[in-house]
Amino acid sequence: MTNRIPVAVLAATGSVGQRFIQLLDDHPLFKVVKLTASDRTVGQKYGHACHWILPEEMPAWARSMEIQPTDPASFAVPLAFSALPADIALEVEPAFAREGTLVCSNASAHRTAPDVPILLPEVNPDQADILPIQRRLRGWSGGIVTNSNCTSTGMTVALKALYDAFGLKKVLAVSLQALSGAGYPGVPSMDIIDNVIPFINGEERKIESEPCKMLGRIEGEVIKPADLVISAHANRVAVTDGHMVCLSIELGQKPALKDAAKALRDYQAPEVSRDLPSAPKPVIVVRDESDRPQPRLDRLLGKGMTTVVGRVRPDPLFDIKMIVLSHNTIRGAAGGSIFNAELLVKLGYVAE
Amino acid sequence: MTNRIPVAVLAATGSVGQRFIQLLDDHPLFKVVKLTASDRTVGQKYGHACHWILPEEMPAWARSMEIQPTDPASFAVPLAFSALPADIALEVEPAFAREGTLVCSNASAHRTAPDVPILLPEVNPDQADILPIQRRLRGWSGGIVTNSNCTSTGMTVALKALYDAFGLKKVLAVSLQALSGAGYPGVPSMDIIDNVIPFINGEERKIESEPCKMLGRIEGEVIKPADLVISAHANRVAVTDGHMVCLSIELGQKPALKDAAKALRDYQAPEVSRDLPSAPKPVIVVRDESDRPQPRLDRLLGKGMTTVVGRVRPDPLFDIKMIVLSHNTIRGAAGGSIFNAELLVKLGYVAE
Amino acid sequence: MTNRIPVAVLAATGSVGQRFIQLLDDHPLFKVVKLTASDRTVGQKYGHACHWILPEEMPAWARSMEIQPTDPASFAVPLAFSALPADIALEVEPAFAREGTLVCSNASAHRTAPDVPILLPEVNPDQADILPIQRRLRGWSGGIVTNSNCTSTGMTVALKALYDAFGLKKVLAVSLQALSGAGYPGVPSMDIIDNVIPFINGEERKIESEPCKMLGRIEGEVIKPADLVISAHANRVAVTDGHMVCLSIELGQKPALKDAAKALRDYQAPEVSRDLPSAPKPVIVVRDESDRPQPRLDRLLGKGMTTVVGRVRPDPLFDIKMIVLSHNTIRGAAGGSIFNAELLVKLGYVAE
Amino acid sequence: MTNRIPVAVLAATGSVGQRFIQLLDDHPLFKVVKLTASDRTVGQKYGHACHWILPEEMPAWARSMEIQPTDPASFAVPLAFSALPADIALEVEPAFAREGTLVCSNASAHRTAPDVPILLPEVNPDQADILPIQRRLRGWSGGIVTNSNCTSTGMTVALKALYDAFGLKKVLAVSLQALSGAGYPGVPSMDIIDNVIPFINGEERKIESEPCKMLGRIEGEVIKPADLVISAHANRVAVTDGHMVCLSIELGQKPALKDAAKALRDYQAPEVSRDLPSAPKPVIVVRDESDRPQPRLDRLLGKGMTTVVGRVRPDPLFDIKMIVLSHNTIRGAAGGSIFNAELLVKLGYVAE
Repeated sequence: MTNRIPVAVLAATGSVGQRFIQLLDDHPLFKVVKLTASDRTVGQKYGHACHWILPEEMPAWARSMEIQPTDPASFAVPLAFSALPADIALEVEPAFAREGTLVCSNASAHRTAPDVPILLPEVNPDQADILPIQRRLRGWSGGIVTNSNCTSTGMTVALKALYDAFGLKKVLAVSLQALSGAGYPGVPSMDIIDNVIPFINGEERKIESEPCKMLGRIEGEVIKPADLVISAHANRVAVTDGHMVCLSIELGQKPALKDAAKALRDYQAPEVSRDLPSAPKPVIVVRDESDRPQPRLDRLLGKGMTTVVGRVRPDPLFDIKMIVLSHNTIRGAAGGSIFNAELLVKLGYVAE
Repeated sequence: MTNRIPVAVLAATGSVGQRFIQLLDDHPLFKVVKLTASDRTVGQKYGHACHWILPEEMPAWARSMEIQPTDPASFAVPLAFSALPADIALEVEPAFAREGTLVCSNASAHRTAPDVPILLPEVNPDQADILPIQRRLRGWSGGIVTNSNCTSTGMTVALKALYDAFGLKKVLAVSLQALSGAGYPGVPSMDIIDNVIPFINGEERKIESEPCKMLGRIEGEVIKPADLVISAHANRVAVTDGHMVCLSIELGQKPALKDAAKALRDYQAPEVSRDLPSAPKPVIVVRDESDRPQPRLDRLLGKGMTTVVGRVRPDPLFDIKMIVLSHNTIRGAAGGSIFNAELLVKLGYVAE
Repeated sequence: MTNRIPVAVLAATGSVGQRFIQLLDDHPLFKVVKLTASDRTVGQKYGHACHWILPEEMPAWARSMEIQPTDPASFAVPLAFSALPADIALEVEPAFAREGTLVCSNASAHRTAPDVPILLPEVNPDQADILPIQRRLRGWSGGIVTNSNCTSTGMTVALKALYDAFGLKKVLAVSLQALSGAGYPGVPSMDIIDNVIPFINGEERKIESEPCKMLGRIEGEVIKPADLVISAHANRVAVTDGHMVCLSIELGQKPALKDAAKALRDYQAPEVSRDLPSAPKPVIVVRDESDRPQPRLDRLLGKGMTTVVGRVRPDPLFDIKMIVLSHNTIRGAAGGSIFNAELLVKLGYVAE
Repeated sequence: MTNRIPVAVLAATGSVGQRFIQLLDDHPLFKVVKLTASDRTVGQKYGHACHWILPEEMPAWARSMEIQPTDPASFAVPLAFSALPADIALEVEPAFAREGTLVCSNASAHRTAPDVPILLPEVNPDQADILPIQRRLRGWSGGIVTNSNCTSTGMTVALKALYDAFGLKKVLAVSLQALSGAGYPGVPSMDIIDNVIPFINGEERKIESEPCKMLGRIEGEVIKPADLVISAHANRVAVTDGHMVCLSIELGQKPALKDAAKALRDYQAPEVSRDLPSAPKPVIVVRDESDRPQPRLDRLLGKGMTTVVGRVRPDPLFDIKMIVLSHNTIRGAAGGSIFNAELLVKLGYVAE
């Protein structure tokens, strides 16, 4: 652990920021040396500034760290994890990239840029190779790599297994999303007790586009999305963690149901990402019970990094129906960014 | 109120049975004269035998009524409301029909029979005309009329408005269903707090078939379903009352979005059912807010009989997406049966 | 309804403000002529400015009213209902009182002043007689009358019945409070799903003092609290509406248990407040079931104005234990203020 | 792990039974060799017979074990963990004890017997010494040792620290209890969503007596309770795991508040139980935040074995108020029984 790479966590006090702190505790590759948060808290100890909402205890090293301003010039770290809100990320992340920092971002601000990859190491590690192009085009010595929207994450892992085996044409996705996906304080309790909110601002557009980009490939200087149509309905439900998505899928070929389940179950991450510290083990679990996955029971499979699939069954309109569950603040947010960073280190994109 | 029709409520102590009691309090057409429940409670006062779970107080007249055995021979009522479980309804409801009682049933037991209508008075009152055929074919003087599964109810009302205006080809339906739909005690609390259960036994099959039958028509001696393909995913969520369904719909013609919304908003029940005591006023409410309908806020519109639609928007795969909310124990169960009975009285099918 | 008194609602867009609007719809005595809210919304239509969170629909008359600034000089109404936050109420309510408006306030800002009554018309209508003293001491032509903290309300009604019958010495009160008591957005959902928060800022101090003041009497120019010691624990639970309080009580005399229950059940409001439009009917319901009252089932008894008591039983430390339930935004907030105003009209304290 | 003691789990499929299986996975002292459950499931594989409701995966060794009948004669194990319901435990546990098995029981059936200890190893390990007396009096070669009611557990640990330091006179305890305490299926979801149930059958009597027995001592051939009066109110809230208790306490001496907090914080288990595998580390955590402990955030401290105390503050009626949280199915049930068994092994009461 002596030669760990120094990293910063940007916007460390929010719900995703806290997950970064928790997951980076004792990380074999990374050592947190800087924490930033809103101007109001700069100079305070993290333990004082942060209203910690995770059941796991705040690590002692974090408690005593001092909040820094989010100023790219003042601290030269090779790697930064960003939990910044999209509007701030739009300005701040490029400034860090310009100063030589590789930013692993949760923000949606840059996900649609054709030279910024949305990475899932168990799905598309090859899209990391857009980074040299991004650096050249933008004149950056650092860079920006994003992870996908937390709802797109699990469904893209599952879709990848089917895409490789049978091709994909159409996907209808209806999400039942957890409260932690809205950050903190996020959804008022009066809005969700004995209730469902059938709307999440901007979410359906992301679910309809991000998986296509992640399943695409680099062509010339851009990432070209896969040719696939997705329709999404996004709902918020009274669950703390774990996004569930109901999927109806039209495949390219028409496999037997058991072969579709087998393709999901046997899916392996590409060689390069298989043994990274945060790699999900296994990538996909397919549950056989008639009523699983369920968020409370299955969200922490594989330390919250595994994608859990269930109820693979025929669809009278398309080919197959199924359910996908993924932990939205671990695999779908902080854990995903850290997994991306591990890949980028392995690929030599992080200055050590 | 002097000449009200005497009625029985079968299985009056369960969650749907209680709704019958509550909704039949002071009903202008019907007077409850018999209550039945399980053998164990026969002879007890209803107020003693029933663990009442509604916020509305148990009516005083019900409290002091004595539970009868569910025995068709022993009581000759022209009309019975049935909240019997499907396996018991299979035997008992025909026995009542044979004795001359018209049974308005919530049970699924007879819904698939081609001579038993699934009635929604604001949608298909004409299917009541299968009753004389049913009586002739089966040699009954009474009869069986069902209302649909509680999830199919609201979506069929909304689909009817679109079907009339534009025709219908394909529907993908994903439900987020309330706990009261599972009866009482129903879903254990440990299974639903901080959780979703993505499975309801037998429900998807019902959602995929019942709306087709309700949108069909009588041909010869059978009800012929409409030519329409539905794919369903059923989920249970932590909501007390109010089933929500996300719909993606392919229409026959391709209307402008505003015309689809207008067809929903302007939908009128057929003349015959428009002024019945339980008729929803209006039949459909289309909400304009970006995040409605929501179960807690909208389930009691039109005294729980109105179908609430929202988020009518384009669908990248089909034509339109939308959300439908309907109160599952009022419009989707007890209230629906009573509405059916009112229609049958008006049509002269109930012996007075 | 032609001669209704014109009233203003201050801070009309919050959760208590919305209850005022809902409860003042078609009120026989009062007609809302002014609505105020935060500066940001001044000039907007109420229907646009307000994120309405009640299941009951927003009244049409309110929807089209324009938000006014909260400026006492600009509008001369004889009566104003205040849902202002305490810090703003501290300055603004006296300004209104000075201009001649009688303010019926939910805010805690002035409750501890010895010449400001905390009124519950079914408990202490006689304390309204401090108003002429208040006007004289402060040189006001209007005045300030408060209703109590929403948790103190129900327990004080129940304690009053026991106080009158047996005297009171000690009360231990542990609350399980609803989310609507925290306003909107109030408690973040991540804090309360699968959780309890055993702390509500400032609440225990209020529960320990307000009932004593309400059970006291006017002596000279001040309201002198009753001689009674209360110890309180305040908890927030995942309930939308309805505050429950567990009480252990040491009485002055030692009645038989059934006599204590009888004193509660037979309690009558003082003559003067018995027939006011918002008077609870009955004042107290004592439930006999072993597991009642429960918030979801009992909070709307008596249109949300009735105090519901249950589980009256012996206490091994004190004399009796019991549970009290009261609707926190109706009896405990907006409904309580309106009830107070009705009393003040009857007593001639409102300029007509 | 080669010489682990063979143990049975009685009633292994229920919610406490499942916790036994999960906590006994890889236990250093015990190896599960027998599982029993209801007659209906005898002969089935555990993985098939058990509807597993824990987020942790069912251990593979348990999945393939065959359910045995609960027959003391047929299997001679030195140690059995009992999750039997009280009425069955009343007959079955003595039968095992007679056959030479030491039963560590969760059931309340024998807790009130003066020669059966209610053990908390961090509180009263000395009460294990009643075992030889129990064996002699009853002619048993085995024995029965119980753990306390899940609500009494945490509060007794906290009370012990105060009892040792200052003496105890009176305790008022109001619980907010989790759903898992009611077993499975337990509380119907319709009863607890948006609700509180202010009643748990038999619970208040247990809370009022068990802590006194645990704080007592052996005198002659019986366990004599401590001289202490407890009054209890028991409530069920919408929390999955973690029982919270609000306590108002009258002490023997009157310490400064900080000394009371210090006595709690510094409390050490008796030497004999301090290093047992399941010993909580630390025994008590005293939280300083104004709004802690909270069930979702604090229940798993010390692997669910630590007692968490918070909000230690003055009480206007007694001396101090505070909140205690304890994990009801770990420290308060299965984990507690296993901890007891570890103590009994160390004390030489288990035949090896």
